[in-house]
Amino acid sequence: MIVQKPRRSNRTTARSIAKPSAEKDKDAVRFVALGGLEEIGRNMMFFEYRDEIIIIDVGLQFPEEETPGIDYIIPNTTYLESKKENIKGIIITHGHYDHIGALPYVLDRIGNPLIYATKLTKEIVLKRQEDFPNSAKPVFEAIKGGDTIRLGEHFSVTFFDVVHNIPEGVGMIIHTPVGNVVHPGEFKFDYDNDGKPRGLDTWKWVGEQGVHTLMLDSTGSEMPGYALSERIVEAELEKIFKAAKGRLLVGTFASLLDRLGEIIKIAAKLNRHVAISGLSMKSNVEIAQRLGYLKVEKNTIIPLEEIKKYPDEKILILCTGAQGEPKASLMRIANGEHRHIQVKSGDTIVLSSSIVPGNERSVQNLKDNLARQGAIIYHYKMLDIHSSGHAPQEELKTVIKLVKPRFFLPIHGYYFMRWRNAKLAQEAIGLKPEETILTDNGRVVELKKQSIHLTNQEVPSYYVMVDGLGVGDVGEVVLRDRRALAQEGMIVIIATLGRQNGRILKNPDIISRGFIYLKDNQEILEEIRRKIRGIVGRIPHYQELDADYVKTLIRDQIGQYVFNKTKRRPMILPVIIEV
Amino acid sequence: MIVQKPRRSNRTTARSIAKPSAEKDKDAVRFVALGGLEEIGRNMMFFEYRDEIIIIDVGLQFPEEETPGIDYIIPNTTYLESKKENIKGIIITHGHYDHIGALPYVLDRIGNPLIYATKLTKEIVLKRQEDFPNSAKPVFEAIKGGDTIRLGEHFSVTFFDVVHNIPEGVGMIIHTPVGNVVHPGEFKFDYDNDGKPRGLDTWKWVGEQGVHTLMLDSTGSEMPGYALSERIVEAELEKIFKAAKGRLLVGTFASLLDRLGEIIKIAAKLNRHVAISGLSMKSNVEIAQRLGYLKVEKNTIIPLEEIKKYPDEKILILCTGAQGEPKASLMRIANGEHRHIQVKSGDTIVLSSSIVPGNERSVQNLKDNLARQGAIIYHYKMLDIHSSGHAPQEELKTVIKLVKPRFFLPIHGYYFMRWRNAKLAQEAIGLKPEETILTDNGRVVELKKQSIHLTNQEVPSYYVMVDGLGVGDVGEVVLRDRRALAQEGMIVIIATLGRQNGRILKNPDIISRGFIYLKDNQEILEEIRRKIRGIVGRIPHYQELDADYVKTLIRDQIGQYVFNKTKRRPMILPVIIEV
Repeated sequence: MIVQKPRRSNRTTARSIAKPSAEKDKDAVRFVALGGLEEIGRNMMFFEYRDEIIIIDVGLQFPEEETPGIDYIIPNTTYLESKKENIKGIIITHGHYDHIGALPYVLDRIGNPLIYATKLTKEIVLKRQEDFPNSAKPVFEAIKGGDTIRLGEHFSVTFFDVVHNIPEGVGMIIHTPVGNVVHPGEFKFDYDNDGKPRGLDTWKWVGEQGVHTLMLDSTGSEMPGYALSERIVEAELEKIFKAAKGRLLVGTFASLLDRLGEIIKIAAKLNRHVAISGLSMKSNVEIAQRLGYLKVEKNTIIPLEEIKKYPDEKILILCTGAQGEPKASLMRIANGEHRHIQVKSGDTIVLSSSIVPGNERSVQNLKDNLARQGAIIYHYKMLDIHSSGHAPQEELKTVIKLVKPRFFLPIHGYYFMRWRNAKLAQEAIGLKPEETILTDNGRVVELKKQSIHLTNQEVPSYYVMVDGLGVGDVGEVVLRDRRALAQEGMIVIIATLGRQNGRILKNPDIISRGFIYLKDNQEILEEIRRKIRGIVGRIPHYQELDADYVKTLIRDQIGQYVFNKTKRRPMILPVIIEV
Repeated sequence: MIVQKPRRSNRTTARSIAKPSAEKDKDAVRFVALGGLEEIGRNMMFFEYRDEIIIIDVGLQFPEEETPGIDYIIPNTTYLESKKENIKGIIITHGHYDHIGALPYVLDRIGNPLIYATKLTKEIVLKRQEDFPNSAKPVFEAIKGGDTIRLGEHFSVTFFDVVHNIPEGVGMIIHTPVGNVVHPGEFKFDYDNDGKPRGLDTWKWVGEQGVHTLMLDSTGSEMPGYALSERIVEAELEKIFKAAKGRLLVGTFASLLDRLGEIIKIAAKLNRHVAISGLSMKSNVEIAQRLGYLKVEKNTIIPLEEIKKYPDEKILILCTGAQGEPKASLMRIANGEHRHIQVKSGDTIVLSSSIVPGNERSVQNLKDNLARQGAIIYHYKMLDIHSSGHAPQEELKTVIKLVKPRFFLPIHGYYFMRWRNAKLAQEAIGLKPEETILTDNGRVVELKKQSIHLTNQEVPSYYVMVDGLGVGDVGEVVLRDRRALAQEGMIVIIATLGRQNGRILKNPDIISRGFIYLKDNQEILEEIRRKIRGIVGRIPHYQELDADYVKTLIRDQIGQYVFNKTKRRPMILPVIIEV
């Protein structure tokens, strides 16, 4: 494992420049992750060999505390835009937004290359595309497990099926000029009713192809043991559903297509009708039905408007918002803002999803609100009613042992998770630290026939932020201002001066937001005004007014005064009006 | 259990008014929690009987996402301020900040009543008081387990020792005119080496006194089973310490006095010297030494400056910041900003504390940064190296069974946690739902000889926020502005008009922060200016200028334009300057 010094985070917009291609090793395959390595999400990576590029996934990341007000963060495609004629195709591993979500923003910029995806993944991409009528129309080639496709002269890719929590996920062997690189997408083990993992043959077969480098999802690398089998989740859910005397409301992720299918099947078995609240969930279930992943009798799924036609014990409502998202169904239900559903005493509410870090408080609020209204609540911490889609430590180790790669490159996850994953590979098959590579977003890794190494080359990978209609127009400075405004607020100070003599024409105007009520603090207000008159008054009036200089004086002196007085540092924004 | 409709959260500043005392039942004991019921923290409650009041705990709460920029949130003492002559004393259960932290802000306001606390708790309060030289000097009466004190004519209190993660925690039986109320403070079970809980006799004895109402901490009520024994934590820590070849850095909470003691003892046993980084931790260890809770040889604890005098394998550094707090030791170490400590390859770093909800990202960053520098990291999710201080379900049930109260009133924790705790009491001893009371901050509960009930009376319990030097001067409006500024930023628009004719004298000045770079978006800037000229131009000039009306026009029309153009809603702040 090659350990690096702490480096500037990818949240800065500092533009790192790729070294000129003259320095490239002509016989090396270059690998770059544009996202996904210092976050959970924004998965996008590419391989480059001479003048050919293939891309894997084009995902988005949801905003974080440090990026207030942002809608999404998408991968930086600056490098690919400069080489778009070289792009031979995009491969999508599965239909989750952290793997497909940036397509509408990025496709145009990189020349709308052909997309290789399974049928279900394609449907989900197309569904989302409806919200972006002006972006490029994606062009697909359908693939499935077992297929091999050729991409350009130097790459070919063989797909194999993997189990995730959405159907039709694929992993792949990328046949490159230096050897086979395995990228299994995201996966977990599927267990039979005896608790034995299924499909280990596939991994064995992959290993038999001879593997140069294994790239492995690190999301589950901190979790010990094996994943909870979905069979157990099903059984637990069935137990709760059976015990429920009134209505059942089940909250989960709209993207957990497999779970949605399980829940609907159990409901049907127990003669409950299923109504779905949440657009994304509804359209996902429709897609699953259309493609044959979900087969239920005609009247199992009913429109939400019709739930009142049935007795409570015949109803199950599937809804989004188990994370406490303010606008999703479950939160609107909890707050009494839902058009069709009000919580009533005797409802059983099941939250069948884990809590995404950062959402703990929202989920707590959600549970509080629902409990206050008399609902009986089950959530995944109380019972085995959720299982992650990502292989934990023992499953990762099993894969590593079966695939037996010469080199190991953990992907998807924060540094510590990838470090942990690298340790697993070292433990499982005795790889040396230098054979397990911890790279970074934007960093170029060179794969040669007998080696792999981290270069010093970088391509731009700084955040591209989507905010409203803007893509990339909110940068680090704007975010820094937002964070500062959130912490201490601001004071705008307007000094109106006579152009002729530089004298103050009127009492300075002062407005503040997010600081304190200035109206209730006349003393501070008056002192600020007095100080401004002093600052302006001390400027010799034979001198031409240097507005920037006066602003600096105001900013410094008023800032210091306010801090001494309140121990707070609001943003001070001086404006000089010359009339 | 009495289930209530969802109510306005205590985060609003709406002033609820206590009903006039004429309506009070003269024979009832009134109980009110001023905080701690819709949060973790800010614990403060009082009992009132006729003209006598006793208070338990005066804690603070740390800020949350919804209260940006705030230092602390403290309990609202409006009601107590109006009755300060009735206050017979404050009882402090233990020395954690969520039980003592608001004392310096509150004591003055409520007439500086006598504080009953154990020796250690007193020392911690006094230590903190040093930071508040201008606040009231607290007056103490020392108590210990087994003591009984009289408070006024109607109350007396018998204390008993409980085990928490700080020494000298006490629980109490409050002898009131209507019966005994038990408040056990915060506690967990202590286990002997065979895994048997110690001290069950105490709980049995408490039960034998005859208990009207049991008030029970709900923090652990969602956790199934029993707490991890500190003996196991100790053993695990010792194992890791023994295996460490280089330096050891251990991060934990400064307030976990027991854990600090354990770590120092193991270090001494393994011949490691202990250096402490973090002021609060250092002063807590000093207090523990002074009071005899921690006995170590003279040269076990060394000054931080001296760590370089010893070989790495003889050093253990205890530090604050295991939550990734930006200014605490471990984060400064991780960022290379610590004066005495730089991470080096071969360091073993142990995070011996849970993650406080909301800190997940910071802890992830911390681990990433430390791992990048070559440290070997252990944290509590990987191993049994942390145990909560709060009794989980089975321990709570054991206490309920031994205390056998007639009524049950869960305290400390969000509604759902208290709901869960009430369920435990119903399961454990068959209490009826109406015998388990779920109240709210500020709500008056009446205890009578044969009953307990939730009244409709309320005393003010809205948030009082501490920000810099201000207490209570940041209200909901200021916070709302901060949140809005954080999401979309703001635009200040300054229109300078002639007082005589209402005509625009100069091109409108526009400044924005946290929105987009207006400099890069000249088109929007120009359009805003054009629109302002239009708005002002359309005002008939024979009419006197109505500045508020013009501002409303600007706010609406510019706001709409910006939204159409960008799908964002920055705060629009129009200023009219008349010259």
